[in-house]
Amino acid sequence: MSNRLKLVLAYDGAPFAGWQSQKNGEAVQDHLERALARVTGRKLRLHGAGRTDAGVHALAQVAHVDLPHRSLDEAQWPAAFNASLVPALRVLRCHYVAETFHARFSARGKIYRYRIWNDRILPPFEAGRAWLVAAPLDLEAMREAAGAFVGRHDFASFAANRGQPVPDTRRTVESVRIGLRGRRLTIEVAGDGFLYKMVRLMVGALVRAGRLPGAGGEIRSRLANPGRAFPAARFVAPAAGLILVRVRY
Amino acid sequence: MSNRLKLVLAYDGAPFAGWQSQKNGEAVQDHLERALARVTGRKLRLHGAGRTDAGVHALAQVAHVDLPHRSLDEAQWPAAFNASLVPALRVLRCHYVAETFHARFSARGKIYRYRIWNDRILPPFEAGRAWLVAAPLDLEAMREAAGAFVGRHDFASFAANRGQPVPDTRRTVESVRIGLRGRRLTIEVAGDGFLYKMVRLMVGALVRAGRLPGAGGEIRSRLANPGRAFPAARFVAPAAGLILVRVRY
Repeated sequence: MSNRLKLVLAYDGAPFAGWQSQKNGEAVQDHLERALARVTGRKLRLHGAGRTDAGVHALAQVAHVDLPHRSLDEAQWPAAFNASLVPALRVLRCHYVAETFHARFSARGKIYRYRIWNDRILPPFEAGRAWLVAAPLDLEAMREAAGAFVGRHDFASFAANRGQPVPDTRRTVESVRIGLRGRRLTIEVAGDGFLYKMVRLMVGALVRAGRLPGAGGEIRSRLANPGRAFPAARFVAPAAGLILVRVRY
Repeated sequence: MSNRLKLVLAYDGAPFAGWQSQKNGEAVQDHLERALARVTGRKLRLHGAGRTDAGVHALAQVAHVDLPHRSLDEAQWPAAFNASLVPALRVLRCHYVAETFHARFSARGKIYRYRIWNDRILPPFEAGRAWLVAAPLDLEAMREAAGAFVGRHDFASFAANRGQPVPDTRRTVESVRIGLRGRRLTIEVAGDGFLYKMVRLMVGALVRAGRLPGAGGEIRSRLANPGRAFPAARFVAPAAGLILVRVRY
């Protein structure tokens, strides 16, 4: 019987230094590991499905941890964690899983959502949760441009350098859906995996396509020429608008 | 030509010490008056439609100020304010109005919304913006109980003491609408005016009606006996769930 515990958790990214453990102790991982230490009396390491940057949110991030023993039933774990976590971070569900399950390596895909507020003023309830784009956006041009992302491509020119080389920059984007409700524009991207800052670079390119007639064509050029530098065309949408919606296993 | 400027503004109440000016300078009014001083070079006094408590939010609070002269067009004012305001506070619209207009005394009614999250865990995006009620709520019992509030009543037993005596505690509640969408329960109250903590005391009584069979009847007793003390039945819903939606003129 495995002592591996799978956690599904949600966070408002604003007060955290991203997912991955930081020296200042203010990463989501640090907060969770401190809560875990309070319950178990041990310093245990959590493994996340992926690292979200500072300011990026999650509705259902996934992590796992190997416990020394099953000290609590799985139904008791969320309350045990939440009792000492800040309100911006909640453990939603926990399950004991087989040791073949790994939060990162077992993941088969992810869904991200990006929120844009298309107006002159960002409402206070949207602060830290959306990108304010004041310029008018051509929704049809954005939808047409988004089609270029769908399929298997080398996304090297839609990735930022994290310091480590990535051996294979090919990824499959299954869908890019753009919705508009009032002033809120939502871009939802599903794929088998995402490179560092890939969604934010995709969103940056889509907003460019929505603002500048003809800019949508740049996306195809960049996907076709992943080795070439396109400095002028690379602008990264801010972290605050990005939400990790789901990890698929 | 009047130099009276009407402001419509929105705020996330979490970081503020309520509407009314405080010694620590952290009230919404203080933030607005500092922004105004930066633009005009003068210390001017704002008059709000009503004082919201610390933690209470506003989608469209109204205030007015008498300017020494029309230094900006009305369309320029929101950006002039917002340039030096924190993101949790935004001026949405400004208009020059006649001197007969007074943000507080001209108000003919208000609409408040109260948000309850009816589940065991409060999602991070709801933190500071909803009241977490874990117990099951009988929606029909709440709706029936809410009917007792509608009409003109003496709401003395649904008011907290603010230190000043209120000469007339009669108010007209036009409607109380209770909606449910997923785990989010919304109570929207429209009326000609509200006593101190009246909406939060009404919501507290409605949640009690939704939890305890027969408790709904207490509301009619309390409205019929405004002079009597009902200490056991008075519980105040937390500030975080309350939003001032609109001021009617």
